[in-house]
Amino acid sequence: MRLVLKAALVGSVLVFALPAVGQFAKPEDALKYRQSVMFLQSQHAGRINAQLKADKPNFQVIQENVAILDTVNKLFFDAFPANSEMLANTRAKSEVWTNPAKFKEGAERLNAEVARLAAAARTTDVAATRAAFGEVGKTCKGCHDEFRRE
Amino acid sequence: MRLVLKAALVGSVLVFALPAVGQFAKPEDALKYRQSVMFLQSQHAGRINAQLKADKPNFQVIQENVAILDTVNKLFFDAFPANSEMLANTRAKSEVWTNPAKFKEGAERLNAEVARLAAAARTTDVAATRAAFGEVGKTCKGCHDEFRRE
Repeated sequence: MRLVLKAALVGSVLVFALPAVGQFAKPEDALKYRQSVMFLQSQHAGRINAQLKADKPNFQVIQENVAILDTVNKLFFDAFPANSEMLANTRAKSEVWTNPAKFKEGAERLNAEVARLAAAARTTDVAATRAAFGEVGKTCKGCHDEFRRE
Repeated sequence: MRLVLKAALVGSVLVFALPAVGQFAKPEDALKYRQSVMFLQSQHAGRINAQLKADKPNFQVIQENVAILDTVNKLFFDAFPANSEMLANTRAKSEVWTNPAKFKEGAERLNAEVARLAAAARTTDVAATRAAFGEVGKTCKGCHDEFRRE
């Protein structure tokens, strides 16, 4: 009985010390992963923006960067597992975990807006692509306002 | 004359302070970008590895992660622009810049090995996929041995 209790206690201590963090070996990996993804998002959005500010945007460059965005955008949503909310240096607000449905809605909206941007970029219509990119930017900002600390 | 000289000096100081760094606004962005890419590579390779160590690998998970690897692998090569070699915390050896042909050869080999891994994963043959993944790992290690500091 004593041994069983001891084993159970050791077991629960281990569970507490090594919490499940989704697909990540440790909570810090989840933070580093989502920061990595978001940095790539900002860089590739920046490259698209630079083209769209030019007089004659290079649509091949835009399309390549939209394709990269489309892949990396899909990575961040799963990088906020339970037990990764209390990390030092995270800018994620607790609302990510207390209102997961709304957070998911934002992630899905981003994917939809990037798909629209990809479609606009394929037409090589500058005004349409600028408008679609504007919607992507609004979606980023909307989520950041709600789920990210200053 | 004096003014012109002064302007030229100020100009060259500015050039020195704000060197061209490829597609990056500043050298530190190139470092952060390549570190982000490599972290994603390691995470997704790790997820593939975890499946391939299991008795019954989930090939859908493997294929999804190989597709992500295939995208992010293509990002790191351009993230070592001139003037980003002297940064604090970079683990890149100077050979990246002194032997760019060999560095490029490594990057291209990685892309080819990941394409072979994708083909193997589509067959859902465990042994073939493990072998192809082993080659990817060797390619990573080969480049790290040559171009990355301990």
